[in-house]
Amino acid sequence: MVGYAFMGAMHSHAWRTAPRFFDLPLHPELAVLAGRDATAVKAAADTMGWQDTETDWRSLVERDDVDLIDICTPGDTHAEIAIAALEAGKHVLCEKPLANSVQEAERMAVAARDAAEKGVFAMCGFSYRRTPALTLARRLVEQGRLGTVRHVRAQYLQDWLSDAKAPMTWRLDRTKSGSGALGDIGAHSIDAAQYVTGLEISGVSALLNTFVHERPLSGTRVGLGGSGADDGGTGQVTVDDAAIFSARFDGGAIGVFEATRFALGRKNSMRLEVNGTLGSLAFDFENMNSLEFYDGTVPAETAGFSTINVTEPDHPYTGNWWPAGHGLGYEHGFTHQVVDLVQAIADGRTPSPSFDEALRVQRVLHAVEQSASSDSGWQHV
Amino acid sequence: MVGYAFMGAMHSHAWRTAPRFFDLPLHPELAVLAGRDATAVKAAADTMGWQDTETDWRSLVERDDVDLIDICTPGDTHAEIAIAALEAGKHVLCEKPLANSVQEAERMAVAARDAAEKGVFAMCGFSYRRTPALTLARRLVEQGRLGTVRHVRAQYLQDWLSDAKAPMTWRLDRTKSGSGALGDIGAHSIDAAQYVTGLEISGVSALLNTFVHERPLSGTRVGLGGSGADDGGTGQVTVDDAAIFSARFDGGAIGVFEATRFALGRKNSMRLEVNGTLGSLAFDFENMNSLEFYDGTVPAETAGFSTINVTEPDHPYTGNWWPAGHGLGYEHGFTHQVVDLVQAIADGRTPSPSFDEALRVQRVLHAVEQSASSDSGWQHV
Amino acid sequence: MVGYAFMGAMHSHAWRTAPRFFDLPLHPELAVLAGRDATAVKAAADTMGWQDTETDWRSLVERDDVDLIDICTPGDTHAEIAIAALEAGKHVLCEKPLANSVQEAERMAVAARDAAEKGVFAMCGFSYRRTPALTLARRLVEQGRLGTVRHVRAQYLQDWLSDAKAPMTWRLDRTKSGSGALGDIGAHSIDAAQYVTGLEISGVSALLNTFVHERPLSGTRVGLGGSGADDGGTGQVTVDDAAIFSARFDGGAIGVFEATRFALGRKNSMRLEVNGTLGSLAFDFENMNSLEFYDGTVPAETAGFSTINVTEPDHPYTGNWWPAGHGLGYEHGFTHQVVDLVQAIADGRTPSPSFDEALRVQRVLHAVEQSASSDSGWQHV
Amino acid sequence: MVGYAFMGAMHSHAWRTAPRFFDLPLHPELAVLAGRDATAVKAAADTMGWQDTETDWRSLVERDDVDLIDICTPGDTHAEIAIAALEAGKHVLCEKPLANSVQEAERMAVAARDAAEKGVFAMCGFSYRRTPALTLARRLVEQGRLGTVRHVRAQYLQDWLSDAKAPMTWRLDRTKSGSGALGDIGAHSIDAAQYVTGLEISGVSALLNTFVHERPLSGTRVGLGGSGADDGGTGQVTVDDAAIFSARFDGGAIGVFEATRFALGRKNSMRLEVNGTLGSLAFDFENMNSLEFYDGTVPAETAGFSTINVTEPDHPYTGNWWPAGHGLGYEHGFTHQVVDLVQAIADGRTPSPSFDEALRVQRVLHAVEQSASSDSGWQHV
Repeated sequence: MVGYAFMGAMHSHAWRTAPRFFDLPLHPELAVLAGRDATAVKAAADTMGWQDTETDWRSLVERDDVDLIDICTPGDTHAEIAIAALEAGKHVLCEKPLANSVQEAERMAVAARDAAEKGVFAMCGFSYRRTPALTLARRLVEQGRLGTVRHVRAQYLQDWLSDAKAPMTWRLDRTKSGSGALGDIGAHSIDAAQYVTGLEISGVSALLNTFVHERPLSGTRVGLGGSGADDGGTGQVTVDDAAIFSARFDGGAIGVFEATRFALGRKNSMRLEVNGTLGSLAFDFENMNSLEFYDGTVPAETAGFSTINVTEPDHPYTGNWWPAGHGLGYEHGFTHQVVDLVQAIADGRTPSPSFDEALRVQRVLHAVEQSASSDSGWQHV
Repeated sequence: MVGYAFMGAMHSHAWRTAPRFFDLPLHPELAVLAGRDATAVKAAADTMGWQDTETDWRSLVERDDVDLIDICTPGDTHAEIAIAALEAGKHVLCEKPLANSVQEAERMAVAARDAAEKGVFAMCGFSYRRTPALTLARRLVEQGRLGTVRHVRAQYLQDWLSDAKAPMTWRLDRTKSGSGALGDIGAHSIDAAQYVTGLEISGVSALLNTFVHERPLSGTRVGLGGSGADDGGTGQVTVDDAAIFSARFDGGAIGVFEATRFALGRKNSMRLEVNGTLGSLAFDFENMNSLEFYDGTVPAETAGFSTINVTEPDHPYTGNWWPAGHGLGYEHGFTHQVVDLVQAIADGRTPSPSFDEALRVQRVLHAVEQSASSDSGWQHV
Repeated sequence: MVGYAFMGAMHSHAWRTAPRFFDLPLHPELAVLAGRDATAVKAAADTMGWQDTETDWRSLVERDDVDLIDICTPGDTHAEIAIAALEAGKHVLCEKPLANSVQEAERMAVAARDAAEKGVFAMCGFSYRRTPALTLARRLVEQGRLGTVRHVRAQYLQDWLSDAKAPMTWRLDRTKSGSGALGDIGAHSIDAAQYVTGLEISGVSALLNTFVHERPLSGTRVGLGGSGADDGGTGQVTVDDAAIFSARFDGGAIGVFEATRFALGRKNSMRLEVNGTLGSLAFDFENMNSLEFYDGTVPAETAGFSTINVTEPDHPYTGNWWPAGHGLGYEHGFTHQVVDLVQAIADGRTPSPSFDEALRVQRVLHAVEQSASSDSGWQHV
Repeated sequence: MVGYAFMGAMHSHAWRTAPRFFDLPLHPELAVLAGRDATAVKAAADTMGWQDTETDWRSLVERDDVDLIDICTPGDTHAEIAIAALEAGKHVLCEKPLANSVQEAERMAVAARDAAEKGVFAMCGFSYRRTPALTLARRLVEQGRLGTVRHVRAQYLQDWLSDAKAPMTWRLDRTKSGSGALGDIGAHSIDAAQYVTGLEISGVSALLNTFVHERPLSGTRVGLGGSGADDGGTGQVTVDDAAIFSARFDGGAIGVFEATRFALGRKNSMRLEVNGTLGSLAFDFENMNSLEFYDGTVPAETAGFSTINVTEPDHPYTGNWWPAGHGLGYEHGFTHQVVDLVQAIADGRTPSPSFDEALRVQRVLHAVEQSASSDSGWQHV
């Protein structure tokens, strides 16, 4: 695995935990953790349960005892690592967004397709898909319970940058992160909307906004950030703080998307609402164990949004965990991701979301930026 | 009508409004308002739309232009007024609780039965029944959607006495009100539970508690109170501040009841939850336009409590008001009460809740007090 | 009053009820109801409590016993009636949207300004402002509790057209209604957003969509519609079924708006969420007695969205109604509108929303249509 | 560890995970798993990550490489194992309820006190305390944010026995489980209520009920059960299906408790609401990452129950996990339990809940049964 910050800890937990609750066809071993700072990576490996460490990710690619490389670094390094790994015959799990540009993403998708022919597979880490409530949402759409989809409204609301004094982080530096709220969290909404509806976005009209242009460089951030420099001075925010866009989907549905880290009071409110001709769905990650479902075929007298507690044995993934009603947490989506990835590798098939699917998201991100920079004019994806 | 405080204003509104939205077989006229203070009752009559006033309720009983007497006074006067009215051939609508003792209530029920033989009818004002969501709840139970009822949990939570300095009111004086939270709001829960389930309470075990024993006499209270005296000094609280009891219903269901005006933060949280073998219901008056319904016959994959927005044309009463989703308020229950009362009178049948039904509630209130005063020992109703 | 359908019944109720609960400086009388069908208007007048009727609105303008004309007709007639009334020295209350075009709205605003100089006043019926929770929202913004506003998200979701077989109505005929969801319900969101934030929309990028292009002409509609013709055949829907737009506000805030009558399961979900630098607000009309408020100055340990039950004596309007927790309904906003209008007339000042404010909304509606018809390109308002 | 069913899997997960996210003073190793069936226990040990197995728990007590024994068996074996372990100088973590009778619990508490003098410690597994929202609730009460507690209402609602055909399990066999809903889930409510308020229950009045007296013996149960025998025939349910009781606490507070596994639609609704003179709290495990807090010192204009998303770095335990808003699951309470137990052992102090605290809960369970069997008469604890 490359990277050992927030996402590194999360992925390690998933690799350790998956075989304890799911009957996996292959047995994952936490072989080598890579990071640039030898001391820090050693400490992280001990804490997270990795057997060995390297200070250059290239060593992972060369080692025979590594079968899969899990990429948990900022987006600017994804393409180089992923392509090298795939070419060396290592399976790849790469954090989202796939890359910082469509060009990189296209090269990665090509590499993934080539590797797949040799039985080497790549997956992109849109983990929200594997929150049981969203997996169930997808299942209900597939079953036809929503009929034809007409409306999608997706909001991803956080507030950790609302304070103008929150320090600079790599997530606000375009050269590292590619974009701001758009790629960091909006990408999740795009993937989730396309995944749940089974429809692709065909065009967008967008508006990007930066509320705070300069932030202190020093200070330690708890949470999603991490300081960008030693101390003193300020850094330029070179990404969007908020992204808003309208979309059209294949098949006639329309959508509204919003991603921001300035929605004071919303901590991780990744909301998705879908209205079809026969039913509707609503989800908010702040109540991640619930899915709201409106069944339009129920007589008006008792029709209403049902709050499904998605923890029953029949629900996706949940039968392997606790009894009904004993909710899961954020990390379970990552564990399920590992389960499905290992299963796909054992089955010799490309896991989903593939790099091609992730490229599709990347094209939407790109169209959003194009539209925003041309007076919100319509952009085909 | 006798009485012109909070309930008087409410009833006046109901009488004025019912014929504007419902096609009534009889046309109610707001003839005479009675109250002891001539100036005050005159002012109230002007504001509330009454044509004439009297300073003694006995005059209403004697007047030929009065067909129905609506009693909105404290409980200690209900029996005398209602019985006199019924004997004089006036229909009666009497606020709840029916009386301050089982003895009075029994006399009232006898008077009502006698009057009914002469085509004169009496109704008790348990208005919550006519909140569309609770009327729908009853309908669903009647349709068998809940199967056999097993559990009832009823809470009536307010907080307007939570402040120990809130002034004394007649509602805290046992000689006026009969009891405290028990009769004032617990009576609503008892009626609603029996009405919705269609089952009668057969026995109880109870605990009553008074948190604040003495309150200032002066001061003006906005809301449910009203000062008890001019100023200075304190008054003794002679009723319960909170009532808790367990109950058994005919048919094997068990219930938990709680009524309090000390649940800080709960403004008018009249909650009722019923679990049956096939389904469950949950209601909270703070979201009075919604009913939660769990249909146990739905497969586990999509089963969940549905939030029914009880404003559809097919729902009880709501078709006479606004389009779906345009919610009703507290007063509509009173307007519906008037509608049903007028209809029953025109049909020549006893309206529900009859004085007999209200007597049944009174017997439960009595059993609760008996149990509470005998170490919570079981009391048959 | 001109018009006696849904809105006519509502306005009549408001005129009847306002003086019963509020101490008005003038006493409104329900003098004359106008409508084209003599029999129908007579019946409506009886039901709704009007003393006299006319079959031509022009008669109202001429009658000396009419001081104020309340316009509850479709939008295509607003300009003619309102201007005539104002010129004849009658105060005017005109339903929203103000008109079907900016040109008409401008003429109306001029007429209103001219009339105001003679002490004759005009108001536009954006009644949602007077839902106590939204009035409180405005108050909190004014008090600075939100700091600088950054985000507005406004959704107005209904579903009464979701069924493709729901019949044609004047609301789907552009010549009558001017636009579809945009003007019918989106206008409310625009007004509410500008009212609550105190900010004006400076530009928009929009997308309009029609899902169902043809509908049966016959049939009776309960609710917001009304059949458009006798029977047989279909009618062309010539308006938008859904409107989506991004907006920029003066002062740097950005907004997302969506209006649709195809959000299956959402009955009257008029939602508004505002995020500022110090606090946030969220409202959903389906829980119209509640306002969610996030106070960003509260320490993180206990910070959270508070559900304010907006029924306390200190809240806007509510002290004149029932005790705390005894919720209000949809119609109360209309009663409060009457109260404020009467007060403004008595005070000799222009009520709010004035025709100038309503013109401002009309300009936004226009810009939305312009943007939608030019590939979502940005339109200044 | 002894036992490897649902609770065994959960405890194993906690032991494996705690050192990965918390800086523990001692390093736990998963040494030996004990169970009667050699093959099954071997398989479980492999899945759950235990190094060795035994088929008799007594071997654990004798082994030198075991420092702590974690008891995850039915209640009838707790006393024997725990006492033997403590006498052998092994620390003990024992699942709740502590025992099946007050007598056993007293012996265990004595053993724990004796062991503590030798630096050997015992803890009882009331894991709900360590759900961050409930730990925060305790903290707020300790800080005086609620003032004097007046009301406690605790409900523990499940529905997995609602189906009369759900098979027999050891949890319905009094000789194994001691009691039914009362000890299984009611015990959690009792502990949580006493823990959060800091008050002890001084007396109770109770009602127990069994809805289904006979169940099929065969069949496999997903979830909390487990079949009791091979197949065919029925077994007698010898425990309560539901427990209801009123309580008085030291200091004048009163409480209502209900525990049932027949509340159709409620999956794991462990609810606790506390009202004090200054504030109120409400919790429902079905939204386990949220705590509702009403601050009575906030002016009425903005007072309301705040939904605290208990995932901030300043909240109990959560800073060691994910960024704010990325919720935790059921298992985290168990991981936190391990963290606190290990810390207490390292510090040489008795962890909480101690066996003495658990004995206190046991006395309440006993008083409930006594009251229920004597016509709900009051029982001092």
